[in-house]
Amino acid sequence: MYRTHTCGALNLSHAGQEVQLAGWIQRIRKLGGMTFIDLRDRYGITQLVVNQDSPQDVNTVLEDLGREYVITAKGTVVERSSKNLKIPTGEIEILLKGVEILSRSQTPPFTIEEESDGGEELRSRYRYLDLRRPPLQKAIALRHKMAQETRSYLGQCGFLEIETPFLIKSTPEGARDFVVPSRMNQGQFYALPQSPQTFKQLLMISGYDKYFQIVRCFRDEDLRADRQPEFTQIDCEMSFVERDDVLAQFEGLILHLFKSVLGKDIPAPLPRIPWKTAMEKYGSDKPDIRFEMLLHDLTPLTRDTEFSVFRNAGYVGAICVKGAASYTRKQLDELTEWVRRPQIGAAGLVYVRCSKESDGVMTFKSSVDKFFDRKALESWARVTGAGDGDLILVMSGERMKTLEALGVLRLEMGNRLELRDKNHYAPLWVYDFPLLEWDEETQRFYAKHHPFTAPKPEDLDKFYSDDPKDLEQVNANAYDFVLNGTEVGGGSIRIHDSAMQERMFKVLGMSPDEVKAKFSFIINAFQYGAPPHGGIAFGFDRWCSLFGGSESIRDFIAFPKNNAGRDLMLDAPSEIDAQQKKELGLS
Amino acid sequence: MYRTHTCGALNLSHAGQEVQLAGWIQRIRKLGGMTFIDLRDRYGITQLVVNQDSPQDVNTVLEDLGREYVITAKGTVVERSSKNLKIPTGEIEILLKGVEILSRSQTPPFTIEEESDGGEELRSRYRYLDLRRPPLQKAIALRHKMAQETRSYLGQCGFLEIETPFLIKSTPEGARDFVVPSRMNQGQFYALPQSPQTFKQLLMISGYDKYFQIVRCFRDEDLRADRQPEFTQIDCEMSFVERDDVLAQFEGLILHLFKSVLGKDIPAPLPRIPWKTAMEKYGSDKPDIRFEMLLHDLTPLTRDTEFSVFRNAGYVGAICVKGAASYTRKQLDELTEWVRRPQIGAAGLVYVRCSKESDGVMTFKSSVDKFFDRKALESWARVTGAGDGDLILVMSGERMKTLEALGVLRLEMGNRLELRDKNHYAPLWVYDFPLLEWDEETQRFYAKHHPFTAPKPEDLDKFYSDDPKDLEQVNANAYDFVLNGTEVGGGSIRIHDSAMQERMFKVLGMSPDEVKAKFSFIINAFQYGAPPHGGIAFGFDRWCSLFGGSESIRDFIAFPKNNAGRDLMLDAPSEIDAQQKKELGLS
Repeated sequence: MYRTHTCGALNLSHAGQEVQLAGWIQRIRKLGGMTFIDLRDRYGITQLVVNQDSPQDVNTVLEDLGREYVITAKGTVVERSSKNLKIPTGEIEILLKGVEILSRSQTPPFTIEEESDGGEELRSRYRYLDLRRPPLQKAIALRHKMAQETRSYLGQCGFLEIETPFLIKSTPEGARDFVVPSRMNQGQFYALPQSPQTFKQLLMISGYDKYFQIVRCFRDEDLRADRQPEFTQIDCEMSFVERDDVLAQFEGLILHLFKSVLGKDIPAPLPRIPWKTAMEKYGSDKPDIRFEMLLHDLTPLTRDTEFSVFRNAGYVGAICVKGAASYTRKQLDELTEWVRRPQIGAAGLVYVRCSKESDGVMTFKSSVDKFFDRKALESWARVTGAGDGDLILVMSGERMKTLEALGVLRLEMGNRLELRDKNHYAPLWVYDFPLLEWDEETQRFYAKHHPFTAPKPEDLDKFYSDDPKDLEQVNANAYDFVLNGTEVGGGSIRIHDSAMQERMFKVLGMSPDEVKAKFSFIINAFQYGAPPHGGIAFGFDRWCSLFGGSESIRDFIAFPKNNAGRDLMLDAPSEIDAQQKKELGLS
Repeated sequence: MYRTHTCGALNLSHAGQEVQLAGWIQRIRKLGGMTFIDLRDRYGITQLVVNQDSPQDVNTVLEDLGREYVITAKGTVVERSSKNLKIPTGEIEILLKGVEILSRSQTPPFTIEEESDGGEELRSRYRYLDLRRPPLQKAIALRHKMAQETRSYLGQCGFLEIETPFLIKSTPEGARDFVVPSRMNQGQFYALPQSPQTFKQLLMISGYDKYFQIVRCFRDEDLRADRQPEFTQIDCEMSFVERDDVLAQFEGLILHLFKSVLGKDIPAPLPRIPWKTAMEKYGSDKPDIRFEMLLHDLTPLTRDTEFSVFRNAGYVGAICVKGAASYTRKQLDELTEWVRRPQIGAAGLVYVRCSKESDGVMTFKSSVDKFFDRKALESWARVTGAGDGDLILVMSGERMKTLEALGVLRLEMGNRLELRDKNHYAPLWVYDFPLLEWDEETQRFYAKHHPFTAPKPEDLDKFYSDDPKDLEQVNANAYDFVLNGTEVGGGSIRIHDSAMQERMFKVLGMSPDEVKAKFSFIINAFQYGAPPHGGIAFGFDRWCSLFGGSESIRDFIAFPKNNAGRDLMLDAPSEIDAQQKKELGLS
């Protein structure tokens, strides 16, 4: 052992003890004849002190020390004259009797402090140094705690953690698979799992009843910001359950994690909002309910107007931004440009400023005064709840697109008004999603969740209908866990009947041959006694980042990849040698 | 919910209650007007009973039921007239009031009982049905418990579980890497990790101090029996430690798992045997110390003999098999053939039967009576401790090969004499392995453990010597955890100095360019303050199988692969479509 204590352990109660510490040199200060060294490990920082009375060899080694050197040091715990009450070790220091250099350090390429002066790329190349910084150490410790609490909670609820394979069969549906060439079966490939979906369903068929796993998943997607080609899920499945059983079980997990990790009591039960309501009220299937600013439907009020933009629109909707009537023309123009960006794609933005004049009369100043009189605008204010000092923002167009655009505008205004406090948490469930989405480009349906999601029992007639209009209206027995505007989990009751599963594949445009080649194992399994079952998967990286109050999931992954899917520290992916390729039949 | 209780929960204390159960039909028996159904889930079996007084619709559904059907059933808990005290639910049965079929089953291709009538291949194809069998359910539950206890123990000791990446850089050394073609970086490949070795060392450099992870690893080896291309490790690393600190920490884990999983108290401390002693006494670097039957060196006693086989041998050694003097000539001939098999490759086997005549005089009958007189054989008996009724078996040849052959013979005799009880556990540490192994074929050294293992401090002069004879004698600061003749864990104190690491790569015949291309990240990392560190990795699949008392690790993996690396249930690996290949630049 190179230490008797860690650098976060010692305080006044240890005064007089002989101790040994080991760690990294955070900084060295000389003051007159004294030298102070801040020694750091993941538990804290302890001050070491050397003076003229210290042994000669200590003073000799001292000359040689530098930032990030690793040392082990022996000495006596003494009370400090000038105390630092901000840290637990701040009342003591160690009067050194001996010191040994365990490892030297070059000057680090960036500062290893709370905030670093290094750019993202540089810090990625030296990830092992970035990981020394306190915010990353906290993030990694939080992730450990999240995993530990998840496992102990689910274990106590009777769940078994069961490992599923990583070298599986390629069955892409949606995202692309990563594949692994087989040397022993040349010309054939394994695939890395996008999720253990089919395995957990097979485990239900095997009678395991309550399964979970904290598991790596892989998707070869063109990476958007803050997506990783490998990511971690809390993957769960239960048998003999209906939707409300699943929600109750995992609401328990959610509340446990809030309490045990953040110390927060979240009122139960969590709000539950049907997908249709979420779209109509929040313009989002993952609503941020930390603030109101709901969407309001102005379509009935704007149907008979000379303003052709509204008259011809499938939907006209508005949000009321409290206290924002003071927005200047310039600010409103800038906001209009903002909603016109391709990411949102709105045609424009109509505004109404509401204010009470000194005589007590409400006045409305809008960008459409030409088309709408005071009475009309007053009705808008009534519907949206706008009063003195409020700003009504109105958008119009195709219904679903406009709801979504208004939803994005709502979040933006929430940000501008600082209504989205990252330390305030507002979790909820969203349920009753559409089962299918029609894709114009490929002229086929895609599963909104995945092809194993069951339709709601009351929609079975429509599910077996040959009319696409009926199919579009089928609701899935699916649910999402949403936290502060982010989808953190998603799940469903699954199909457990082979005929229904084959129908689903048919609806998705898969030929019987394709189904057989890709999914015969699961279709077969359904023929030997499959229990009703359902489950959920949580995005673990994202959940950790939300609990850690961070925008970036990368801080919560020890060795993440960049947006191009590269590990800059390893320099991977990389070329492999010709012999390796030849053995794999790839040359 | 489809049930109020599980099939293992009900007993006499529930008599009179209305309950609902769900599960699989294990069997149906008709007795007069009564029908008995054994309903099974992972918690147990409960007997359901239907008689002539039961509702008509229950009797109707009954006609339709079959083995492995999934049903949900309501009824009253009643005391049984004929009790089965072997199972917790055996004193009650459920008088059915309602039953519903949740899922039908075809006739399973093999029996789903303690022992199945299905062959291994058939059971692999229908793994989801094999997983319903009680021994597999127990195995999977034991694995869960092992993982849970490992995590809670190490968590309590201050270890952080930190996930390391699966898509890394190919750096084969020893076994082959599985590789993953990158679509976004065509012509480049990720590799799947053979272990997180370099990452855990980087985490030490990052200051994480105590790391563990239960993690999947991948090796593209030609598979031997009971090896899997993907396998699970308990991977651990600590900073500021020396060997004995690591052994003490993980001895704690080992004893905790024995106690919490098996309920066994193992005396501490565990025996520690140097590698050299293990080889000389047991002929194995993973000795089974459940029984004695040690190897004895007869070389000094056989040097001056006319028997040229012994005279010319580098080593002559023997084991004493207690009570085996009664072995017949035929049995001994068969044993001689057995040691001559290529797997052992011995030239032959010399035996001495020891027995006390009625006059009290010891006699020795050997296969080398021509060359060795009574006095010589008596000296062998003295050295090996052979007495009345014992059999001495002697082998000779090149020293290390002969020690190993005798070690294998020892295990075989242990099996034949039933000295290797799978319910008896004898764990130990083996330490001080050679650092390097010379390979005649490629004329170079290989790392016996891996290239990051540190030489013992006292052997550093030899490590920096240019004489291969010196290098061969360098001991590694390495250790194995051995249980019942199986290596379950292995670890070492690591190199934490870039110059020493570069020396190691040079000894292993790697060019500076090759080192730079493959390992520059770790060599660089050592230049920014690396703490002394060391760790261990346990083979989790194997450990589970030993604790479960099974020969096969496959029973402890939910979805294993066969010896050809195939998943017979999924039919993977498999061909992928041309479009997928093209996107990956593989067509």
